[in-house]
Amino acid sequence: MQVGMIGLGRMGANMVRRLMRGGHQCVVFDKDPEQIHRLTAEGAVGTGSLDDLISRLTPPRAVWVMVPAGDATEAIVEAIAQRLEVDDILIDGGNSYFKDDVRRAEALRARGLHYVDVGTSGGTWGLDRGYCLMIGGHRSVVMRLDPIFKTLAPGRGDVERTKGRDRMDGTAEEGYLYCGPAGAGHFVKMIHNGIEYGLMQAYAEGFDIFRHANSKRLSENMRYDLNLADIAEAWRRGSVVGSWLLDLTAAALTENPDLSNFTGSVQDSGEGRWTVMAAVEEGVPAEVLSASLYTRFRSRQDHTFAEKVLSAMRYQFGGHVEKADR
Amino acid sequence: MQVGMIGLGRMGANMVRRLMRGGHQCVVFDKDPEQIHRLTAEGAVGTGSLDDLISRLTPPRAVWVMVPAGDATEAIVEAIAQRLEVDDILIDGGNSYFKDDVRRAEALRARGLHYVDVGTSGGTWGLDRGYCLMIGGHRSVVMRLDPIFKTLAPGRGDVERTKGRDRMDGTAEEGYLYCGPAGAGHFVKMIHNGIEYGLMQAYAEGFDIFRHANSKRLSENMRYDLNLADIAEAWRRGSVVGSWLLDLTAAALTENPDLSNFTGSVQDSGEGRWTVMAAVEEGVPAEVLSASLYTRFRSRQDHTFAEKVLSAMRYQFGGHVEKADR
Amino acid sequence: MQVGMIGLGRMGANMVRRLMRGGHQCVVFDKDPEQIHRLTAEGAVGTGSLDDLISRLTPPRAVWVMVPAGDATEAIVEAIAQRLEVDDILIDGGNSYFKDDVRRAEALRARGLHYVDVGTSGGTWGLDRGYCLMIGGHRSVVMRLDPIFKTLAPGRGDVERTKGRDRMDGTAEEGYLYCGPAGAGHFVKMIHNGIEYGLMQAYAEGFDIFRHANSKRLSENMRYDLNLADIAEAWRRGSVVGSWLLDLTAAALTENPDLSNFTGSVQDSGEGRWTVMAAVEEGVPAEVLSASLYTRFRSRQDHTFAEKVLSAMRYQFGGHVEKADR
Amino acid sequence: MQVGMIGLGRMGANMVRRLMRGGHQCVVFDKDPEQIHRLTAEGAVGTGSLDDLISRLTPPRAVWVMVPAGDATEAIVEAIAQRLEVDDILIDGGNSYFKDDVRRAEALRARGLHYVDVGTSGGTWGLDRGYCLMIGGHRSVVMRLDPIFKTLAPGRGDVERTKGRDRMDGTAEEGYLYCGPAGAGHFVKMIHNGIEYGLMQAYAEGFDIFRHANSKRLSENMRYDLNLADIAEAWRRGSVVGSWLLDLTAAALTENPDLSNFTGSVQDSGEGRWTVMAAVEEGVPAEVLSASLYTRFRSRQDHTFAEKVLSAMRYQFGGHVEKADR
Repeated sequence: MQVGMIGLGRMGANMVRRLMRGGHQCVVFDKDPEQIHRLTAEGAVGTGSLDDLISRLTPPRAVWVMVPAGDATEAIVEAIAQRLEVDDILIDGGNSYFKDDVRRAEALRARGLHYVDVGTSGGTWGLDRGYCLMIGGHRSVVMRLDPIFKTLAPGRGDVERTKGRDRMDGTAEEGYLYCGPAGAGHFVKMIHNGIEYGLMQAYAEGFDIFRHANSKRLSENMRYDLNLADIAEAWRRGSVVGSWLLDLTAAALTENPDLSNFTGSVQDSGEGRWTVMAAVEEGVPAEVLSASLYTRFRSRQDHTFAEKVLSAMRYQFGGHVEKADR
Repeated sequence: MQVGMIGLGRMGANMVRRLMRGGHQCVVFDKDPEQIHRLTAEGAVGTGSLDDLISRLTPPRAVWVMVPAGDATEAIVEAIAQRLEVDDILIDGGNSYFKDDVRRAEALRARGLHYVDVGTSGGTWGLDRGYCLMIGGHRSVVMRLDPIFKTLAPGRGDVERTKGRDRMDGTAEEGYLYCGPAGAGHFVKMIHNGIEYGLMQAYAEGFDIFRHANSKRLSENMRYDLNLADIAEAWRRGSVVGSWLLDLTAAALTENPDLSNFTGSVQDSGEGRWTVMAAVEEGVPAEVLSASLYTRFRSRQDHTFAEKVLSAMRYQFGGHVEKADR
Repeated sequence: MQVGMIGLGRMGANMVRRLMRGGHQCVVFDKDPEQIHRLTAEGAVGTGSLDDLISRLTPPRAVWVMVPAGDATEAIVEAIAQRLEVDDILIDGGNSYFKDDVRRAEALRARGLHYVDVGTSGGTWGLDRGYCLMIGGHRSVVMRLDPIFKTLAPGRGDVERTKGRDRMDGTAEEGYLYCGPAGAGHFVKMIHNGIEYGLMQAYAEGFDIFRHANSKRLSENMRYDLNLADIAEAWRRGSVVGSWLLDLTAAALTENPDLSNFTGSVQDSGEGRWTVMAAVEEGVPAEVLSASLYTRFRSRQDHTFAEKVLSAMRYQFGGHVEKADR
Repeated sequence: MQVGMIGLGRMGANMVRRLMRGGHQCVVFDKDPEQIHRLTAEGAVGTGSLDDLISRLTPPRAVWVMVPAGDATEAIVEAIAQRLEVDDILIDGGNSYFKDDVRRAEALRARGLHYVDVGTSGGTWGLDRGYCLMIGGHRSVVMRLDPIFKTLAPGRGDVERTKGRDRMDGTAEEGYLYCGPAGAGHFVKMIHNGIEYGLMQAYAEGFDIFRHANSKRLSENMRYDLNLADIAEAWRRGSVVGSWLLDLTAAALTENPDLSNFTGSVQDSGEGRWTVMAAVEEGVPAEVLSASLYTRFRSRQDHTFAEKVLSAMRYQFGGHVEKADR
């Protein structure tokens, strides 16, 4: 089917490619003409403006917005919504906050427009591996877009079937899922990323303990000379901790066992924060997901003010003068 | 080659089977004659006592002990060591504390015996999937046992090769690894399990947030009716959080979406605790691994005394009388 | 000076008493006539309705709302604002969310009214001990209310003076503080309560470790027969951990060393949650404040769904059937 | 009574002074003759060696060792024990690990000597404020030392009496406590310090949130210009979070509101670590005490290896290149 794609960055461009491979017609726009030219050369229909893009789509239209979350999304959603006509569909494939989806869906509904939120996992690997899609909106509207989702999704592949799945309907085994009304897609994606933070942190702490076990400072019965890349590699087969993230860790450690090419300053996107907020709003104890987020906060500071408060108290009560022992 | 196996429980019996499939001769013993008979019927050499087992092995012997960690292991290791002769090898394949390995290895070395510690991952799935093995001891001694390890390990399989691995030696890609001197195998296995706790907890918290999002108590823009089994299933393909543990989660949720067959009381074995202790000894911040352990501690109590202390303070300062709102 | 007080519960009634002791005239209202009668008998001016209350106050009025946070506050603030006249002051002394203060202050300003938010600490002890007040709003408006705040606050008392305070202005040493524009008072009170959660949890965990050290299950070199009430009492003097919360803990343990009169189910009010959200919004790692909140969440559930997910995974990979060991 | 004191550092010297003020005779030794001279000038009996010290004490002797925990203590305890005679008492007033106490007490008992472990809180303030003492050993032996403990302890002072205390025996209200057999004193002191870490961290996180609320980066309805020294000061009176540690925080913030004289690198002594280990051994969830320890671990590193692992994974899956945003 035909789909408009706005935002041809790392994610959007590859999604267009995968869609074209699946036989869909992609009408594309980006603020950077270079990106448009590149995809036009690969078969997409390039456009020069939002108006142009809208005019080249046959109603009822499906316009997919794939821009970084935040203000950009808000502005573009608004700009497109103003150009759409009754029964057109606007799809937000970025990492929006699910409460924003609820609000936008209501605003668009008032104008006869449909809003669909799609959480997309797969990163730069998605072009070949497929994108895991978590989808929110009205079921009937989402159904209309099924050919697109089916193409973008990984499909069943050779993953071993879960026992009991043969008695169940739906597209989950294809790697895409209708999750519920507006916001449900991004809600599921949000928690997906929250879990991702936790998984990453679990590996990270474990390898940190390995790393320190190689330290000269430890007593002899604690000290080893462990090969971290080999450990990660060995675990990829047959162990309980096998995962795609472990595969990546093995690759990184094979490339550079000291990871000396990384400063250790770790960004966080909105989802990790929203996950903690959702847990707090729901009253769910989410220690691990929170701790994973806080590690990232901490990683971006030289020292927290909290640490200075600790030092200050220690100085006051015991005359302790802290020495840096880095 | 020939190997003695002591302990024919869930793990030991299947390891014997996998070894026999690989053409090795297994001389077996267990305190339960029933287990011995079963494996004898499958081709193993059954024995009636430790002495019998030792006498049926050709020196230099290799005796693998596969009993639950703790006092049982200590006693059996001692009993076997007394019966072994110079240059024989004693392998502890259970979940011993690595500091115990260091101690035992020294004691055996004084008698001319070799001690090898093997951390084994794979659970009940290992028979077909293979066991991921993490091995400690003298390198030359471990080399002698290579045919056994190679058979037990999963082998390369169809797992995609890590970039750069072609330039590296060793057995990591086969799913088994020589980690270092005595204790190194169990040290690596210990952290493996610590990470496992963290990974499990990350998924668990995420699905808990989903579960609560289905709650009637929440305001409407927080509330959904999510299908947890479908979500887990969809994530198995193309998503960043794909893993073997996710596969198991999908299977469990498919079987019983409410998990009502589980009380929620969760045991912990020694490794999770030792991991936290190792982190503390090394000075490594291990929030997530610790929190995962504490969740299990908490799960086995109706209420902690700590919670009563909180209630008591609240009562004292504000006259708050707590109401259970379960 | 004259002040209207709406809400004569545990907090409001005692504040009226303390204000009257300080020579202020209190015009009071509550939805429960019984509360009004009681305070009228003690010298307050009772009123029969909001309209009545407003009419009995001399403009420019100062009306203090002291009702539980949430919908009640919102409704009452609205109801009063509609009855006030230009230059009147509305004071919210409850535990409102600081973002609600910002919104309300703007709404009232548009009508020429002043909004002041006051975070109040002191609980049932405040009548005699005084209330620690954290105040937000326009400085000049807050200044007008200074006589009221001065009376409610504890005053300097015999607390030892902080070195360097003699060179500083302001009312901090009196136990009340102008914190900044609208919302600043409740923001400071919010963090105050967040810290309170953390302090409480620190003591609670420590006493839990003591409690378990008395356990028969531990090995002999870990086991003691500690008297928790005596420990708390001893620490009240000369130790680094002395505090008012410790005083309360000592009182509770003296009353009932087992705290068997408490179930262990612990409520949380909004501030602990908002504190975590503020930390997340600001990017501040707040492990301890979050963990303290999560402990309370956990305390109100028999088992979390997360724990069942853990059990389910364990069952899937190892055939582990969990046993409750309570 | 007469007491020998070995170790005249910050703690030991002031304890000697307080003991002399209380009329006790102190026979002192330190490896630094300067310290001995100083106290001799103040009335102590200086000695030139351990042998000299022992010879100047009248049997049965009481020798108090006040040296930094660790190897020093072990060596000195051994050296003194070799010089003591039957029924002499050796007191370890430092921060030893309680399991070491158990071991030492047994070793000394075999020689007819008594071992008493005393946890001491009070820091540099103890000379005037008194030292809170937590004592382990045989009750009868501890009783013999009561005059010394009574002098060192703060005494009742003007602290308000806990309700119900009048019906209870013991010395807890004097600020010193017999806790139980060998190790009990240091066990209680260990948890005391673990709690201290938690309390400190709670304040530290709260003030960190305040600090960030002053940030230009936040949206306007989150941003304030809070005076942290004033907040700490205001809370000292009438608030729920009042404590001695808050007094110190107020002092530090008054001195330097930015705490720019502190790097933020925070040391940890053994007790925090042992507290976490005790919690793990006992199966007590101790989130807050652990998180407080981990914060200190983290504070002493530029970046953890764990953080680099996170960055490496992010780079692998999404091509994210982390930027330091300090």
